[in-house]
Amino acid sequence: MELKINEGERVDDLQIRGYRIIQDPKRFCFGVDAVMLAHYAKVKPHERCLDLCTGTGIVPILMHAINSEDTSDVKYDAIELQEESVEMAKRSVELNDLTLDVHVILGDVKEAANYYDAASFQVVTVNPPYIEDNKGIKTEYEPKMIARHEIFLKLKDVISSASYCLADKGRFYMIHKPQRLAEIICLMREYKIEPKSLRFIHPYVDKEPVLVLIGGLKGGGQQMRVDAPLILYKEQGVYTDEVSKIYRI
Amino acid sequence: MELKINEGERVDDLQIRGYRIIQDPKRFCFGVDAVMLAHYAKVKPHERCLDLCTGTGIVPILMHAINSEDTSDVKYDAIELQEESVEMAKRSVELNDLTLDVHVILGDVKEAANYYDAASFQVVTVNPPYIEDNKGIKTEYEPKMIARHEIFLKLKDVISSASYCLADKGRFYMIHKPQRLAEIICLMREYKIEPKSLRFIHPYVDKEPVLVLIGGLKGGGQQMRVDAPLILYKEQGVYTDEVSKIYRI
Repeated sequence: MELKINEGERVDDLQIRGYRIIQDPKRFCFGVDAVMLAHYAKVKPHERCLDLCTGTGIVPILMHAINSEDTSDVKYDAIELQEESVEMAKRSVELNDLTLDVHVILGDVKEAANYYDAASFQVVTVNPPYIEDNKGIKTEYEPKMIARHEIFLKLKDVISSASYCLADKGRFYMIHKPQRLAEIICLMREYKIEPKSLRFIHPYVDKEPVLVLIGGLKGGGQQMRVDAPLILYKEQGVYTDEVSKIYRI
Repeated sequence: MELKINEGERVDDLQIRGYRIIQDPKRFCFGVDAVMLAHYAKVKPHERCLDLCTGTGIVPILMHAINSEDTSDVKYDAIELQEESVEMAKRSVELNDLTLDVHVILGDVKEAANYYDAASFQVVTVNPPYIEDNKGIKTEYEPKMIARHEIFLKLKDVISSASYCLADKGRFYMIHKPQRLAEIICLMREYKIEPKSLRFIHPYVDKEPVLVLIGGLKGGGQQMRVDAPLILYKEQGVYTDEVSKIYRI
């Protein structure tokens, strides 16, 4: 596959089965959140999986890398608002020869019903903008701002669209900030996605979590599970065994 | 103070400033949950503090032991449905010479408005029955069953009464099972107690939490904090330093 790389872009090796991704450090590079989400989400054979706010497509590409040996017939859809990111994601899909399995479109998550049928996915994943934005209308936004702040997409829109797309008993996987957990849990329930699992990600065992992984079940019953904490570092600069295994280093 | 001890009862030293409590192992003995709740809840000078489902009064007695050197004018009220427990709690209050500071009554938490004025407490604590009970009406209940199962008191009643008793910006502290966290968070918000802090209690660092401490603020704004995990054991039979300090052993 010939590599189309624009100025300022780079190609990063995902350290798993030779998969690669095109990124532009000036725009947005994936972080620990996308990696943890891709590992937290579970897919089963024959399922259709949708990634909202996909950016450069890191989550479906990494999930394909992680899961396709066992679940070769899973199809991944992905949607992103920023045109340049969609274009990069499409080139990464080609680069990894995944055009039959991963389908990225340009679109607004709020209008998911324009692109996808209701209840047509068994899995929805999302690494949404984390930060509430109360700064009103601006004329210009940086790509990083759009990816990180709720400028064009609120949490409520993310969960409402996920609920629309999910089949009954379909699974929802999101990564977000612990600060917003109460809001997340109540919105999920409002949109009939029952919170079923939580896992907090702590930099060190004695520090507050910086991220939380959330699993939900469309139309599920009450009762949830909280997992053991996911600790990133044993000591400064040294990953825990679990994280080393995830990063394959 | 003369000790009134009935058959089957014992007097346990709380390992803090000589405080003691009367318990009956056949009925119910306090566990790690009451101890952790008493340490998690914060009181400030001049505040009024109410403990719901107080049982033998362990939470207010322990909070008095922990806090009264710094906050000698805090007054503790406590309410319990089971008459024998109330009677034991009252004797423990006398035993520790706390009759001016701790006031235990027999009553139904659901009918808190019969006993207390609205918005009259700055702090409400509760270690409620944890287990949902769907077993219908029974003719006889064991004291332990009543303390552990939601037979006479549902989670919704606990939170509704806490909200009634709490002053604006009053603080709510509860310990419960992580399995019910989604329900807890949504009920708290329904009754205008905003969840503001969570701390999960894990037996070991690599195990699921068995309990969760929850802090709320009556009429508070969004955004919450999740703390570092509270780990009970370093290895089998060996408490972590934090827990050793709490238990003063």
